[in-house]
Amino acid sequence: MPVYKAPLRDMRFVAFEVFQADKLWASNPAFSEIDREVVDAVLEENARFNEEVVMPLNRSGDEEGCRVDGDKVFTPNGFQAAFRQYAEGGWIGLGAETDYGGQGFPKMVTVMTDEILYACNPSFALYPQLGIGAALALSQHASKEVKELYLPKIYSGEWCGTMCLTEPHAGTDLGIIRSRAEPQADGSYLITGTKIFITGGEHDLAGNIVHLVLAKLPDAPAGSKGISLFLVPKFLVDKDGNPGARNAVKVGSIEHKMGIKGSATCVMNFDGAQGWLVGKVNEGLAAMFVMMNYERLSMGMQGLGASEVAYQNAAAYARDRLQGRSARGVQQKDKMADPLLVHPDVRRMLLTVRANNEAARCFAMYVSKALDESRYGMTEEIRRVASDKVALFTPIAKAFLTDRGFDACVMAQQVFGGHGYIREWGMEQFVRDTRIAQIYEGTNGVQAMDLAGRKVVRNQGASVRIYLEEVRALFAELGAGLEVFASGLKHAANVLEEATRVLLEQAAQDVDSTNAAAVDYLHLFGLVAYAHMWSMMARVALAHQDDDLFYRNKLQLGHYFMQRLLPEIDSRLQAIKAGSQTMMAFAEGYF
Amino acid sequence: MPVYKAPLRDMRFVAFEVFQADKLWASNPAFSEIDREVVDAVLEENARFNEEVVMPLNRSGDEEGCRVDGDKVFTPNGFQAAFRQYAEGGWIGLGAETDYGGQGFPKMVTVMTDEILYACNPSFALYPQLGIGAALALSQHASKEVKELYLPKIYSGEWCGTMCLTEPHAGTDLGIIRSRAEPQADGSYLITGTKIFITGGEHDLAGNIVHLVLAKLPDAPAGSKGISLFLVPKFLVDKDGNPGARNAVKVGSIEHKMGIKGSATCVMNFDGAQGWLVGKVNEGLAAMFVMMNYERLSMGMQGLGASEVAYQNAAAYARDRLQGRSARGVQQKDKMADPLLVHPDVRRMLLTVRANNEAARCFAMYVSKALDESRYGMTEEIRRVASDKVALFTPIAKAFLTDRGFDACVMAQQVFGGHGYIREWGMEQFVRDTRIAQIYEGTNGVQAMDLAGRKVVRNQGASVRIYLEEVRALFAELGAGLEVFASGLKHAANVLEEATRVLLEQAAQDVDSTNAAAVDYLHLFGLVAYAHMWSMMARVALAHQDDDLFYRNKLQLGHYFMQRLLPEIDSRLQAIKAGSQTMMAFAEGYF
Repeated sequence: MPVYKAPLRDMRFVAFEVFQADKLWASNPAFSEIDREVVDAVLEENARFNEEVVMPLNRSGDEEGCRVDGDKVFTPNGFQAAFRQYAEGGWIGLGAETDYGGQGFPKMVTVMTDEILYACNPSFALYPQLGIGAALALSQHASKEVKELYLPKIYSGEWCGTMCLTEPHAGTDLGIIRSRAEPQADGSYLITGTKIFITGGEHDLAGNIVHLVLAKLPDAPAGSKGISLFLVPKFLVDKDGNPGARNAVKVGSIEHKMGIKGSATCVMNFDGAQGWLVGKVNEGLAAMFVMMNYERLSMGMQGLGASEVAYQNAAAYARDRLQGRSARGVQQKDKMADPLLVHPDVRRMLLTVRANNEAARCFAMYVSKALDESRYGMTEEIRRVASDKVALFTPIAKAFLTDRGFDACVMAQQVFGGHGYIREWGMEQFVRDTRIAQIYEGTNGVQAMDLAGRKVVRNQGASVRIYLEEVRALFAELGAGLEVFASGLKHAANVLEEATRVLLEQAAQDVDSTNAAAVDYLHLFGLVAYAHMWSMMARVALAHQDDDLFYRNKLQLGHYFMQRLLPEIDSRLQAIKAGSQTMMAFAEGYF
Repeated sequence: MPVYKAPLRDMRFVAFEVFQADKLWASNPAFSEIDREVVDAVLEENARFNEEVVMPLNRSGDEEGCRVDGDKVFTPNGFQAAFRQYAEGGWIGLGAETDYGGQGFPKMVTVMTDEILYACNPSFALYPQLGIGAALALSQHASKEVKELYLPKIYSGEWCGTMCLTEPHAGTDLGIIRSRAEPQADGSYLITGTKIFITGGEHDLAGNIVHLVLAKLPDAPAGSKGISLFLVPKFLVDKDGNPGARNAVKVGSIEHKMGIKGSATCVMNFDGAQGWLVGKVNEGLAAMFVMMNYERLSMGMQGLGASEVAYQNAAAYARDRLQGRSARGVQQKDKMADPLLVHPDVRRMLLTVRANNEAARCFAMYVSKALDESRYGMTEEIRRVASDKVALFTPIAKAFLTDRGFDACVMAQQVFGGHGYIREWGMEQFVRDTRIAQIYEGTNGVQAMDLAGRKVVRNQGASVRIYLEEVRALFAELGAGLEVFASGLKHAANVLEEATRVLLEQAAQDVDSTNAAAVDYLHLFGLVAYAHMWSMMARVALAHQDDDLFYRNKLQLGHYFMQRLLPEIDSRLQAIKAGSQTMMAFAEGYF
């Protein structure tokens, strides 16, 4: 059975030593009640709860899965009780606005609790997380009346939420959805259509489920400009917030999946279900995207959480498992063999995962800081700059952290040899569960296209140039003892600059080039960002290297990243330069 | 439900156009009865049988799995009948010696039927394949009497075989096994011990199961030099080959695994089971390794087979699924959207898989040619040179083809978006099933150490130099129309040469360096070999480019490989140069 301890020391290092979050909070009235002491207590309690209550349900939830019976869906044993406790602990509304019962913690805090939750049990995590996503969209676009009725119930965990986007024929391409919304005399709408892949579409954890549904009005323009967003509760709600009559939305079936088997993934049939418009007519996609930046970072945390728990278990196995002898000669004479850790290749796997994890954690905090500034920044200018930064880095946070997270789970599984393939050890579940994070909330290919197309080519590289200035300002400050970081980061910035130049040049001549380069560009960018994060961490670590081995190890792991993992950017650049011609020259019949 | 058509056109291209196998056979008396016509008929029939009979059991076998009841193990429905037909078709003994009922086909043929079999159903494939492995070891090391008794039964499929190596505490490190062999007065031995991860240890497909078991005599030297190999049949066999009394070897349980669920992976308890020595006392590991070169190439074919079937299904989905519009503008006006194939990133995934597959198929044939020469070569010198080549390339064939095969399955799954995560589509099964190929028969890390340590450093790069001469002789011949290949291959050879030089220099100073570099070196070497294969294929394709689009597409796909996939070697070289110091400096307690 896998073990997990939330990496609180590493989290605090990033939050308080690298980003000095407590100083940021002290200077912003929105966070007047947040300080380091409070956050430390929150982290401790969150870690304890998830390790003790949520984590033990991860394996059993996988083995048991969800079950559908008529129009009811049953979650695995133990999920109900744990969800109650989770809700009562106030964890669902931790980052939500205090006006509606939330606790108002910044993303710089909830990014850490997200990581812990996903590490412990991604299937369980999705139930509260989808509610938070739905609440975010309501919070931005719904009327005050709706917010007062729904948000406190979601934050308290009495009700859950969903996002109903995908249809059998319409996944990434939402412009072609067929779900219909018929306006009624009372201002509501009747929603009809079939939605698939609906996470938590039906389950037994909450008294009501608030569906946010994309559908088209009868006279809507074709394509993505004719999509509206509707609130469709499972049980209709009276003015006092009491659930009443059952709405005409039912689960059709649940999917049999590779992983996250404790999460009910439902086919939902809307058969003239009563719903209410959220936001403006035909602007549903925009309303949905409000929550996307938050959700997509969340998915990144699923990747990091999985990678962290996979690392911890692989490291424990490598310490304990005796197999073979060190190339340096016998290390443990009284044992039949030396521990796996004597073998450099085993260390290579562990350190690769860990070096990525620590960079990812720092990067997630970097993006969270921007998310907080975009929402709570003291000036319009701060909020605008931060919003641009969020826009640039969100696709990287989603796709790069989940791609590397999946690879990490595979690598950690490999440390176990044959035992990694056996279900009882739990390593193969990490692989299966994490695989979905590369797919949902916009596939990682779509994220890459969002980055390369919308965030880089569309503004002619303006956002990248601003970022490069920030990076170059840092490497100018990396002095004695940080040479490996200074030279690596300098090279990384140059490669990103060149890749961006190539991307723009290609785009001017070839409409297919951006999509052809997108995934390589995203991975290149992610690696450069990690080099940036490692340089920031190294600067702090160097200053404290005499205090504690913790800091010297940080420097050492940073070296590992710069020397062994960063060089991938050079190959990625070459792939980008190859252009789209070799791909597009094949006739369709070739494939 | 996944589809599959054996890629016979591509196979014939490699066998007959690139390697001119028919000419090789015509000049070797061992293959006097093999010609192109016969092989064509074999391939057609093999493809038909596997597509129609074996493939349909792949999904159902996964859903159903194996079942243990007392000391009996039941394979999934349909496996028994299919195995009977497979055996009656003569497929098990296709490559086996004719003296004992085999059909005597060269590895250059069975490498193709292996690919087809593994593509259709890897769980099913393991039952006959393990028998072939056991038979190979017997064929080389057992007495004539034993061979006459056992081999015909294995080749006919009446009996199956296993390899019993791993114990709970001893996986890669076989030197510490605890299974004991007590000599008896009649010359036999009583074997006692527990073996785990035994593929096909017990099942309902055959009348007897022939276990090849590693165990230690009471006075054996410690470590791997004290291991002997024993034949332990499930049912004791009389002099006429009739199974009689049940031997004291029983299944303890079957493993619950990530994939290959139709393959019974057993814990086997030997409780004073009667066995017979195979080969010499204390030379059991060497005897076992005889079969390893063949088995390891087989595992590579599992990787390639999975990658091919995954490709075919992803390509079919990308042709059919309508989603989004081409960046060039609407392509299919009468449809609600264009097919996925209009998107360059989808093509990137498909072409990456396909470019690796076609190189892998050529590489497998290249290694098979050497395997045939090492066994049937007309002179001692030919056999020796070929054996060295086999030794050098076997770890690459096993590890590189399975690593890329797994990545390919993941990439092909990604093409399906959310549907790739749903069990019914079958794509996620390819991922789960293929994962084991990176682990068993020696993990890919162990393969890399075998390559870098035993095959390169131990002979100071002599084998690599011979290979580089061969590669350079080729690129000198790559003239007009093949510039991309000539320059790419030249660079590839230089990078391999430099990586080898670095490996040797590091090894002279640092005992940990070879293992630290091993996996990067293996992937670098694999990519160089693929560039070599693509250059060989391109030379043939260029000569025929006016004949058929087939050849022009080959050239085009070769360009894709050289431009987009080969550049990875530059990053790998940088990682190798980083050495082991950054890894080994961490104290064990750090992990």
